[in-house]
Amino acid sequence: MHRRDWLKSAAAIAVASPLAGPALRAAQGQRTLRANGARVNAQLARFDAIGRTPGGINRVAYSDADLAGRAFTLALFREAGLTPQLDAAGNIIARVEGREALPPIIIGSHVDSVTDGGNYDGPVGSFAAIEVARSLREQGIRLRHPLDVVVWANEEGGTIGSKCYIGATESIAFDGTARSGFTQREGIARLGGDVARVPAMAKPKGSAHCYLELHIEQSASLERTGRSIGTVQGIVGLTWLEVTITGFANHAGATPMDQRQDAMLAAARFTVAVNEAVRAEPGRQVATVGRINATPNTTNVVAGSVVLTVDLRDLDDAKVARFAARFREIGAEIGRSTSTTFAFRELVTSKAALAESRIMDVIDASADALGLTHQRMPSGAGHDAQELALICPMGMIFVPSVGGISHSPREFTKPGDVANGVNVLMNAVHRADAL
Amino acid sequence: MHRRDWLKSAAAIAVASPLAGPALRAAQGQRTLRANGARVNAQLARFDAIGRTPGGINRVAYSDADLAGRAFTLALFREAGLTPQLDAAGNIIARVEGREALPPIIIGSHVDSVTDGGNYDGPVGSFAAIEVARSLREQGIRLRHPLDVVVWANEEGGTIGSKCYIGATESIAFDGTARSGFTQREGIARLGGDVARVPAMAKPKGSAHCYLELHIEQSASLERTGRSIGTVQGIVGLTWLEVTITGFANHAGATPMDQRQDAMLAAARFTVAVNEAVRAEPGRQVATVGRINATPNTTNVVAGSVVLTVDLRDLDDAKVARFAARFREIGAEIGRSTSTTFAFRELVTSKAALAESRIMDVIDASADALGLTHQRMPSGAGHDAQELALICPMGMIFVPSVGGISHSPREFTKPGDVANGVNVLMNAVHRADAL
Repeated sequence: MHRRDWLKSAAAIAVASPLAGPALRAAQGQRTLRANGARVNAQLARFDAIGRTPGGINRVAYSDADLAGRAFTLALFREAGLTPQLDAAGNIIARVEGREALPPIIIGSHVDSVTDGGNYDGPVGSFAAIEVARSLREQGIRLRHPLDVVVWANEEGGTIGSKCYIGATESIAFDGTARSGFTQREGIARLGGDVARVPAMAKPKGSAHCYLELHIEQSASLERTGRSIGTVQGIVGLTWLEVTITGFANHAGATPMDQRQDAMLAAARFTVAVNEAVRAEPGRQVATVGRINATPNTTNVVAGSVVLTVDLRDLDDAKVARFAARFREIGAEIGRSTSTTFAFRELVTSKAALAESRIMDVIDASADALGLTHQRMPSGAGHDAQELALICPMGMIFVPSVGGISHSPREFTKPGDVANGVNVLMNAVHRADAL
Repeated sequence: MHRRDWLKSAAAIAVASPLAGPALRAAQGQRTLRANGARVNAQLARFDAIGRTPGGINRVAYSDADLAGRAFTLALFREAGLTPQLDAAGNIIARVEGREALPPIIIGSHVDSVTDGGNYDGPVGSFAAIEVARSLREQGIRLRHPLDVVVWANEEGGTIGSKCYIGATESIAFDGTARSGFTQREGIARLGGDVARVPAMAKPKGSAHCYLELHIEQSASLERTGRSIGTVQGIVGLTWLEVTITGFANHAGATPMDQRQDAMLAAARFTVAVNEAVRAEPGRQVATVGRINATPNTTNVVAGSVVLTVDLRDLDDAKVARFAARFREIGAEIGRSTSTTFAFRELVTSKAALAESRIMDVIDASADALGLTHQRMPSGAGHDAQELALICPMGMIFVPSVGGISHSPREFTKPGDVANGVNVLMNAVHRADAL
């Protein structure tokens, strides 16, 4: 459905507020709101059954399990009194009209997962956003700004839905195969979207008041400091390199050690060298070789070729570029010493996305009002918020991940922390409405 | 068909010889025979079309292409005037009766291939064996010993056919999946065999006069020395280890470098360390990490587990055992330093199989008689000959591989070298018959 359509239908559920004008604005600066965190935790517990496999949660975007997860989520929108609509990218959006003709506050997250992931990365922020709209309504609070509650499509596959939303589609290979096995084009159609209509949906810079997203931390910083809330300073910039190492396949028994062009050995040396390089320098930069495929991948054959990936991140874009260049040099050096060749392809580069200072202040103030300890921190993981930061002020709220574990079936955030996050999100929305 | 049956039918094609007794034996010691090498090269050229894919020759045992290759080979047996029979393991066997009631001389090789392999590893020795029987017949030469021409089933999957032949089936997982996707049991049935009848087919020690196999070298020793024929001293012993490295899957962006349990990094360090260990000591020992599978194998996730294999070989069984133990120590050390665990499973161990001195002398003498340069050398690759060595004296003849390349679509042996090999095999059979 086109945007004009959902604007009309969303208007039908707008709720009248007993307060209006400057009096309300002053009150918003002081009142401390509380959402129904127990409701969000109960929803998460029910959601855990969808896409659950022996290896973990598998709600990979566009898969049958993702469709089932979205159907569950659409029901939550309706329970909350919202009227969810689909845009051309398959994002689920519901608008609560505001009292004034202003750009919307956008809140949301995603419900798709990685392969063998967990139940918290995405759903926590998605269900919290729905809950905030529901609690505001139940408590008779009507914002000045419209409130758009959004569940973004295919976040884990490269923030596809939010990229479409802001019109940053040049890097999306719509006919490339997504992790589900469907192309992006087929997958978006499976969600009810239509790639042909994506260009028309792009929102311009300044079209939103701000974007707020609650998410699990995905590392152990909050757990280690014992603080309840992370106020995100920004999302690190990222480069993904695909490295193709070409040697020569030969018999593993008959080929003497000094006559090999062993792509596996070259890949191993490269993996070790990349790790040593990023650790040799102070800072929070990270680099990971997470994917490897060898050919012919047979016990008794020296590998003829290996394809691997490097995931490289830092809040400083210049540092990311410098390390990416260094990795190319390392590959060339190892290629010379192993009689193999290294070819690099840049799969993805996204710049660091910084949070807006005023939004960070609002989050800090919300945590203070609720009596919750908090700290500022970067996000090492990418989020839809990094796309929204390109069109409006952005802020993110982190809650602790037990053991710092995410993208794993052992991913877990305690119910009390989920409830804290929902409350901070609700108050941050309320306070940002006054900005 | 059961062995008793093919013994009877093979007898029908025995050819009468004009010579007999001691006179013949003396003549055999001196005559230099020549087979029709051009015929073998023409057969190889036709065979190249079977199982040919863009990635190379794919006649993996039990696959449709393997069945097609065996049908081609059965036709060659018949063209040669032989009556091929199948044993319970799917080995193709044809007997030429001898003049005396003696155990047979066995010659042969295999026609199955690795994934993305070449057209010479196996077919050269198989077609040469058929050619030797054909040339002996055409030249009116009848041996004292019966001559069994054999094409062994599933050599590349672990010398399955020859293991069954000698009754060494305890290490075969008949219900395990072979590279074709079929179980060994299903695959053997596809070849016309029957696993239920395999135990009854086992040949006892001493049941054959000797075994001779012609094969491509698969490394570049002959090419580098410029010699025509390799007289194999033995086939190296081998251990295959499967190494399961368990770390912890976590977010590649959000997990600081010093808080990881990265199974991929541990695998890389292990691969480098194994390579350094085998190269640090003089000798011809080889070790190869050729297969690797990471989980979840995703760009933005620190690998939670990696399974890789090590292929370790040497002519000295004690050295193989010592390195296998060293690799376990290396794994334990790397596990400690990376917060991962290493679990080792021995997939295969085969002892070195030494060639018989008298058979090596016969091969050397045959090469000399033909005016061909030769050298003694180990075989780094495994062959069916290693199984046959357990029941009778064994010898192997190597011919040069261009560039030392095998298990690759670029595997190639020059027609002149193939023809030399066929001639040496024919003379070696003839001379061994006099032993």
